[in-house]
Amino acid sequence: MSTKIGRRSLLKGTAIAGAAVAAAASSFPAPAISQGKMQLKLATSWPKQFPGLGTGAQRLADRITNATEGRIEVKHYGGGELVPPLGCFDAVSEGAADLYHSAEYYWQGKSKAFNFFATVPFGLTADEVNAWIYHAGGQALWDELGADFNVKPLMAGNTGVQWGGWFNKEMNTLEDYKGLKMRMPGLGGEVLRRVGANALLLPGGEIYPALEAGTIDATEWVGPWNDLAFGFYKVTKYYYWPGFHEPGTILSCGINRGVWESLSAADQSLIESCCAADNATMLAEFNARNAGALDTLINEHGVQVRRVSDEMLKALGEQSAQVVAEVGAEGGITQRVYESFSAFRKTAVPYNERSELAYASARLLTA
Amino acid sequence: MSTKIGRRSLLKGTAIAGAAVAAAASSFPAPAISQGKMQLKLATSWPKQFPGLGTGAQRLADRITNATEGRIEVKHYGGGELVPPLGCFDAVSEGAADLYHSAEYYWQGKSKAFNFFATVPFGLTADEVNAWIYHAGGQALWDELGADFNVKPLMAGNTGVQWGGWFNKEMNTLEDYKGLKMRMPGLGGEVLRRVGANALLLPGGEIYPALEAGTIDATEWVGPWNDLAFGFYKVTKYYYWPGFHEPGTILSCGINRGVWESLSAADQSLIESCCAADNATMLAEFNARNAGALDTLINEHGVQVRRVSDEMLKALGEQSAQVVAEVGAEGGITQRVYESFSAFRKTAVPYNERSELAYASARLLTA
Repeated sequence: MSTKIGRRSLLKGTAIAGAAVAAAASSFPAPAISQGKMQLKLATSWPKQFPGLGTGAQRLADRITNATEGRIEVKHYGGGELVPPLGCFDAVSEGAADLYHSAEYYWQGKSKAFNFFATVPFGLTADEVNAWIYHAGGQALWDELGADFNVKPLMAGNTGVQWGGWFNKEMNTLEDYKGLKMRMPGLGGEVLRRVGANALLLPGGEIYPALEAGTIDATEWVGPWNDLAFGFYKVTKYYYWPGFHEPGTILSCGINRGVWESLSAADQSLIESCCAADNATMLAEFNARNAGALDTLINEHGVQVRRVSDEMLKALGEQSAQVVAEVGAEGGITQRVYESFSAFRKTAVPYNERSELAYASARLLTA
Repeated sequence: MSTKIGRRSLLKGTAIAGAAVAAAASSFPAPAISQGKMQLKLATSWPKQFPGLGTGAQRLADRITNATEGRIEVKHYGGGELVPPLGCFDAVSEGAADLYHSAEYYWQGKSKAFNFFATVPFGLTADEVNAWIYHAGGQALWDELGADFNVKPLMAGNTGVQWGGWFNKEMNTLEDYKGLKMRMPGLGGEVLRRVGANALLLPGGEIYPALEAGTIDATEWVGPWNDLAFGFYKVTKYYYWPGFHEPGTILSCGINRGVWESLSAADQSLIESCCAADNATMLAEFNARNAGALDTLINEHGVQVRRVSDEMLKALGEQSAQVVAEVGAEGGITQRVYESFSAFRKTAVPYNERSELAYASARLLTA
């Protein structure tokens, strides 16, 4: 789902940068407080009504506002309303907004460590990444990374396993990737390059026209619910599963640290609970709507749904491990995050094999 | 994980019963309110420090207390402290406690519909049941069922896929179930009976001695984290995966309706968010701890981990569908719940096959 990364204001992850940010923040007004009420600005990377993501950001804003009876009023600005869609991190870092709702891989230009707090190719599923962040050291590392940029990060949603993408031809062997012009940004795009594809960056709004004009041959986005809304079925023929590039993308809520530290322990706890609640309900919404949308794509629009072959998945898996390990070898906090993530993955994969995977497979025997 | 069902106070799901309960509730004191503070009693079915379940109930109590700065103080009583472990539903229904933390299948003596709001054999996974309840009609049906008993129900945790159980012999064919004395309560136990086993009900604390004495040959409980704590590895040899009987057991928070309706919309919203937050964090904790505990069982205690054969899973799946359909045929709200649950399952299973299951399978190609 990622779009082109904003590379403005490339603060590096150092204590010096943190101090610079704190100094810069002082030139912005503090959050509006009047009559005991606090008004907070939530800037996002999504169109305001975008299904799942934009509606999820609205739900988070409403949740905090409602639970405090408006004492903390969170006003939601869609991407571009207050700052550009990918400018929300810098806006929060510098104090021009109070909170953002986005996905951390958009900030990989600042530190590649951010990838692990969104998703990486052949990485953890939604349930697994929740386990790592809530209960196996992930949050402490994320807090440390965020603090270098004056941000307190929390999970606030997940898309679940994303789909492999839309193609104009059948993808039967690894050879079919050679020269394929496919829209896929980030680390997933790098993996595609290594199997011979021409991976391209295109913002969401430019994908459909590019497919129609033949500028690209294929694209990925999120999954049936979001992809149906984009109408890709009108200009491509085959829809492949599963995706390898985003197996459980976290949506994050980042809070300006000055704002966070000005809150009482009670309000910090309340906001943590609201974010965790949205983490549960957004994944549930993707799972509920994706199932129905897949039926619509197949039965109403005649989409040909195909499975990516084991040969391709194996090659993509090998390249993914390589690409992610190269990121991890960068040293500093990126390496420490990679090592924590990888250690958790090493126990999570065999556990999943014996629980969720085994159960879901067993269920198909009589489905 | 279920224990023997308390069959006291068998209120039937009718409007008349609801009125009777409301009348009965008036003889209990209202929640303690002093100096603008409200003290609520949370009664549970678990020992207070029981990993995952008891600690989860404590986390929920703390979450509400902390987020309101003690304005709503939730005091956690372990099973047996205020009322017997399985008496918490009646206590909340009648107003002797304000909230319970438990699992709804314990109340199947009141209405079999409650099973669907905990788990049923070969039913939905944690992620799927979240989708059904939050976004596909489940909550409205649960609210209707709960209202007949003067209870407002919310999800507040999930164990994930439970394990198949502990055995003293290898289970190679369906014949091996014949005459097997296995501890498994509820609908799962009924399924076992239909494949020839002797399914027995035993409370948690009696399982270990019964295995040691040979009174039972096998048992299930939850999964590696909880089962390690019980020490079943000391008296049995084989640990089988996956379980078929509890694929994603919901832990629920039930609130006395009078208390619920006395809360402001803001406090209702806050409690809903706190419950949803615990729903996310408890499943994450089970997933994080189960993976580590499985390593310990295998590498430190030499447990022989085995997969239940396809032949057995297929037979158990067929019997499960039959047992669950018989429950659904009871008519009334049980039938409407069954129909909603089954309609959702019908789209969720093929969706899971193409998302979580497909991805987790693909990942093993290079694991």
